[in-house]
Amino acid sequence: MTLRIGMLGYGFMGKAHTNALDRLSLFFPDAPDVERHILVGRHAVDEAAERYDFTHTTDDWTAALDEIDVLLNLGPNHLHAEPSIAALERDIHVLCEKPLASTRDEAERMATAADASSAVSATGFNYRFVPAIQHAKRLIEAGELGDIRHFHGRYVNGYLTDETAGWSWRLSKEHAGAGALGDLGSHTIDLARYLVGDIETVTGHTRTFTNERPWGEGETRKVDVDDAYSAQVDFENGAMGILQASRQAHGETNNNNFEVHGTDGAVKFDLARLNELEVHHGDDRGFQTVLVTNDDDPYGDVWWPPGHVIGWEHTFVHEHYEFLTAIESDGKHSPDFEDGAAVQRIIDAVQRSDESGQRIVL
Amino acid sequence: MTLRIGMLGYGFMGKAHTNALDRLSLFFPDAPDVERHILVGRHAVDEAAERYDFTHTTDDWTAALDEIDVLLNLGPNHLHAEPSIAALERDIHVLCEKPLASTRDEAERMATAADASSAVSATGFNYRFVPAIQHAKRLIEAGELGDIRHFHGRYVNGYLTDETAGWSWRLSKEHAGAGALGDLGSHTIDLARYLVGDIETVTGHTRTFTNERPWGEGETRKVDVDDAYSAQVDFENGAMGILQASRQAHGETNNNNFEVHGTDGAVKFDLARLNELEVHHGDDRGFQTVLVTNDDDPYGDVWWPPGHVIGWEHTFVHEHYEFLTAIESDGKHSPDFEDGAAVQRIIDAVQRSDESGQRIVL
Amino acid sequence: MTLRIGMLGYGFMGKAHTNALDRLSLFFPDAPDVERHILVGRHAVDEAAERYDFTHTTDDWTAALDEIDVLLNLGPNHLHAEPSIAALERDIHVLCEKPLASTRDEAERMATAADASSAVSATGFNYRFVPAIQHAKRLIEAGELGDIRHFHGRYVNGYLTDETAGWSWRLSKEHAGAGALGDLGSHTIDLARYLVGDIETVTGHTRTFTNERPWGEGETRKVDVDDAYSAQVDFENGAMGILQASRQAHGETNNNNFEVHGTDGAVKFDLARLNELEVHHGDDRGFQTVLVTNDDDPYGDVWWPPGHVIGWEHTFVHEHYEFLTAIESDGKHSPDFEDGAAVQRIIDAVQRSDESGQRIVL
Amino acid sequence: MTLRIGMLGYGFMGKAHTNALDRLSLFFPDAPDVERHILVGRHAVDEAAERYDFTHTTDDWTAALDEIDVLLNLGPNHLHAEPSIAALERDIHVLCEKPLASTRDEAERMATAADASSAVSATGFNYRFVPAIQHAKRLIEAGELGDIRHFHGRYVNGYLTDETAGWSWRLSKEHAGAGALGDLGSHTIDLARYLVGDIETVTGHTRTFTNERPWGEGETRKVDVDDAYSAQVDFENGAMGILQASRQAHGETNNNNFEVHGTDGAVKFDLARLNELEVHHGDDRGFQTVLVTNDDDPYGDVWWPPGHVIGWEHTFVHEHYEFLTAIESDGKHSPDFEDGAAVQRIIDAVQRSDESGQRIVL
Repeated sequence: MTLRIGMLGYGFMGKAHTNALDRLSLFFPDAPDVERHILVGRHAVDEAAERYDFTHTTDDWTAALDEIDVLLNLGPNHLHAEPSIAALERDIHVLCEKPLASTRDEAERMATAADASSAVSATGFNYRFVPAIQHAKRLIEAGELGDIRHFHGRYVNGYLTDETAGWSWRLSKEHAGAGALGDLGSHTIDLARYLVGDIETVTGHTRTFTNERPWGEGETRKVDVDDAYSAQVDFENGAMGILQASRQAHGETNNNNFEVHGTDGAVKFDLARLNELEVHHGDDRGFQTVLVTNDDDPYGDVWWPPGHVIGWEHTFVHEHYEFLTAIESDGKHSPDFEDGAAVQRIIDAVQRSDESGQRIVL
Repeated sequence: MTLRIGMLGYGFMGKAHTNALDRLSLFFPDAPDVERHILVGRHAVDEAAERYDFTHTTDDWTAALDEIDVLLNLGPNHLHAEPSIAALERDIHVLCEKPLASTRDEAERMATAADASSAVSATGFNYRFVPAIQHAKRLIEAGELGDIRHFHGRYVNGYLTDETAGWSWRLSKEHAGAGALGDLGSHTIDLARYLVGDIETVTGHTRTFTNERPWGEGETRKVDVDDAYSAQVDFENGAMGILQASRQAHGETNNNNFEVHGTDGAVKFDLARLNELEVHHGDDRGFQTVLVTNDDDPYGDVWWPPGHVIGWEHTFVHEHYEFLTAIESDGKHSPDFEDGAAVQRIIDAVQRSDESGQRIVL
Repeated sequence: MTLRIGMLGYGFMGKAHTNALDRLSLFFPDAPDVERHILVGRHAVDEAAERYDFTHTTDDWTAALDEIDVLLNLGPNHLHAEPSIAALERDIHVLCEKPLASTRDEAERMATAADASSAVSATGFNYRFVPAIQHAKRLIEAGELGDIRHFHGRYVNGYLTDETAGWSWRLSKEHAGAGALGDLGSHTIDLARYLVGDIETVTGHTRTFTNERPWGEGETRKVDVDDAYSAQVDFENGAMGILQASRQAHGETNNNNFEVHGTDGAVKFDLARLNELEVHHGDDRGFQTVLVTNDDDPYGDVWWPPGHVIGWEHTFVHEHYEFLTAIESDGKHSPDFEDGAAVQRIIDAVQRSDESGQRIVL
Repeated sequence: MTLRIGMLGYGFMGKAHTNALDRLSLFFPDAPDVERHILVGRHAVDEAAERYDFTHTTDDWTAALDEIDVLLNLGPNHLHAEPSIAALERDIHVLCEKPLASTRDEAERMATAADASSAVSATGFNYRFVPAIQHAKRLIEAGELGDIRHFHGRYVNGYLTDETAGWSWRLSKEHAGAGALGDLGSHTIDLARYLVGDIETVTGHTRTFTNERPWGEGETRKVDVDDAYSAQVDFENGAMGILQASRQAHGETNNNNFEVHGTDGAVKFDLARLNELEVHHGDDRGFQTVLVTNDDDPYGDVWWPPGHVIGWEHTFVHEHYEFLTAIESDGKHSPDFEDGAAVQRIIDAVQRSDESGQRIVL
């Protein structure tokens, strides 16, 4: 069976997902076959279809649903819910980019739809598919870190430090739902849940440093999402956590990092060096810089010999391989829409805690 | 004039302060002369006096005050207030170890006494005297980092991850006042104030992972201070901050680090590499690893040629040089008891916020 | 025009080159079209052709030459010369893996054939196509490093430290020509020439630590190539250089690194972190860690936004883009067979210098 | 018994040695007592004596020998031989700064004098007394690295890249004997011998990039020592080595680093982070960053708790402790004058090899 793919959105993410589909046949020959059937969009969609090698185009996502088995929803956050729910109701499989929605309510409705559907849902937390992060997960699940005491995750960028940087939909509550908290923080929250477990209490804080930004000729538009957030959390298993993100951390470029400390070991990760994991075991005298490129490492036998590093884009290849394989096999995929909704609940709790100044129990 | 020194306490800190006094004549020949007059303590005080080259001993600190010009108060936290206040009331200069007290109330009384006294007070936040940290301060004061957006400070250790590690006074609320928050967190809070400024709001969280510990033969004693804390703060100047410490961060050894991000630059510091400061200026494409050992760096002309690194202990030499010089000159020293009390107010706010689950406005 | 490709060899390198061809259409849409026409080999060639999507197969490379426009020669070193020369004589373009040949004489003949041919020749020194290394080249060419004083290049691995590791053709002088010197050292020598310029004098040293290795059941075979080499060189422009490689450097995994120091600046590169370049300019106080992923960096606009790192395999995509573009445009490509022969002359000089114990003037 | 010290020379090294003597009583209370008896020199010797707390001064080193038990010879290299030999002939103990002499002949005579004397000789290779380097030595001696395959040692500085930097005695063959090779290279060669063993063959290369330098008003003086050297060596135990130094490596500041790779493990050291050793053991997946500050580390119980780092100057304290203790006990000290002469033989071999272009067998 060949799965017919419909893709909604074709910017930066469209390129990353197209590339992932492109690479399955050479590296994951057992992945299901796919046909890049239809691209959905309004602006220059035909050119994009040619670039990304889709055979059809439409500006009407409802029409597209008639022709596809799988929807890749890469639109802005406020366009995640409706098409994804409609697809799931027709048992069309959906991979939706993160954060799952622009509000908690939408995310809950999406998770409910996924639960009711026989189709597979996936939320695009691609960093779960970094081999070094999966290696960390293996260590934790094998008990090598003991009981987890601390999770510390940050995702910082500097590109909005400049007050003259222009407005975009990512700076609008209506379209994005949250700022750094949604865009960057959703990744950190997902990794916290993936590696440590569910979060029980949240004290959150958000800040908007720059309240309006240029928009066209001499105009400005209001920024009503956060430039930065922080959160203190307790996990159900007793660990403490600190989460943070900013778009106004000068000098930082896509700096997504975390540390996990347990009673018997610890790990540290930094996206700029995504093939590496710093690992401390029991009696070690220091952290080891482990290059996670061995044959028996996650996806290690798929790519290149040890020491021949892979890049950011490979996470999407792994993600698609797992998602498409789940469609053909047991239908179970992580992270699914329930995971996406769980992250949205934390985002919502951070926002509410910031408003009330109070700790939120989830 | 030779300043007669009395030193209360002579453990690890006694050695660090004695070493500092020892080194002034060779490296800071313009420092005031001191005489190591009397050592105050109860256990093996004579042996300690010989080791540290003090000429007299006593087990009665009140008696010692009759004979000295300067008190170095290195006792446990709950013994900071009474002798320090008595000394200040007699216009004896006092350098007291950190945290300034075991409670906020004591710290306030100490600051009041210092304010009323003509003597110089100093709180032993020795990390202010790391050249690389003073270099960071210079950059910030010169405006090279622009408006500060983020302070992120952590001080983590792993030595209490082991549940069989024994009880000590540092684990008792009565004697220490706080755990990691007081011992390690006080340094971070002081550096935050030194580099960024006063703190306006605090949301804090503390945790005790291990509630009792071995004490002698088959006995245990209760641990009633925190093993770890975290805090989210806002500074008066608009910056956001995250502070954290733990004694249960496996694999970490005296890992005291911080980052400051402004709108035009950023710096990063890590105590294990205390001669280095990571610096990002305006249009730089990355962080520079600056070795802060040049002649025109703080204390750079005092020690060795560029690239000949100094160690942790040197912070105490600088601290004593500044403190003793202040005694002879204008009487102004930073950090003083007011700085120590300001830190204690934050510690107290973290504890109250943890209890109430609410943000505290200072 | 569509270029018909013939590929000789299909192991690890076959996968890397196939992947490169696969990715041109999405990322380099202006690259010439290619048809994967024929795969040449003896063992399981049909399965490989299916995997790599070639339409024809043969065990006779001479027959293949009748049908192709481009030869990718990925065979063992001793099979580089004959097919490459035959192809060039028929004006078939050739990209040959490195080192160019197993002997200097073969390499000279290959360079002569390339010179006489109207076809484009390329030697597979893929590291020239790492964006961070091209960034280093740009800095050097712009004079930002001043006059070059020092080049220091090493490529070390640990996989032959284990004496029970088995024999392979790479350990045979007949098949490989040289050991670490040819396999790893050729990359370093090429980078030295690329970044600094031609080499004038060489003092070389080679060593074989393990003289025979297991081969099948209870048998061993002789190792007659080097396990490690070092060389001291002078460049024509007055710089000094040190080159080294080893397959017996325990703990190292594909550790390809270099430094260049000039009178006004310096750069440092490490393959495990291939998106980074350490850069020191004039009055900087330290090395900057530059993430070479900006839009105006080499190939920076082709892949992903800043901070979204690429991997080892991307060097082959860049290499093919440049090679195929040269075929369609002016026919000029670097590194060509003359570059490959120049490297072989240095390899040969290292071997001769080791034998004679004397400095060789080239 | 109190040892009367005479010190010849009182610049930068005078300060380092004085500081070391100063610190023995607090940190090494079992060290022999010393009296800083007489300072030898011509320029401002009385001021120096006051600063360094010596009771007598002279401009005649022969006269000083009448009054002392120990000579610290810190003069320029060409003044090492005569006073040191005269002292040893009178059974006065001598610690002489490195390199031991300005020529091999002088060094041989000094070693012969030491051999004939009942006094203790010491060459000032202070880096042997870095705890992390002694930890490396322990690992090697315990066999944890297996058979050593590679030593790679470099010591690079950038301070002479500037052509306008002035002339000094260190740039004169008559006074210094060698340039970077003697000043920096002697340290590397000594560490190579300390960690790996004796050197059997040498191929060396030296370069002078800048042939004259400013000297006073509008004058210049000739530079007739090397600005940089490199050497390839074989050790008696079968290891290979590369040694290098430069004073024209822009961007480097006192960068003294080495790596040792054996068949079972490896270590890496960098002076800027002198409390750390990178260690790889057998099956480890990466290098561990070991902070060598534990109580059972070399000198670990003498200084501060784990994680409280020491500096460059501490190497001199350890050196004096060992030297003075040897005087009072068995008279055996490493590195002694024979070690100093062994280093000088390698320096000489590098120079001869550079001239002849030939490998030298020692």
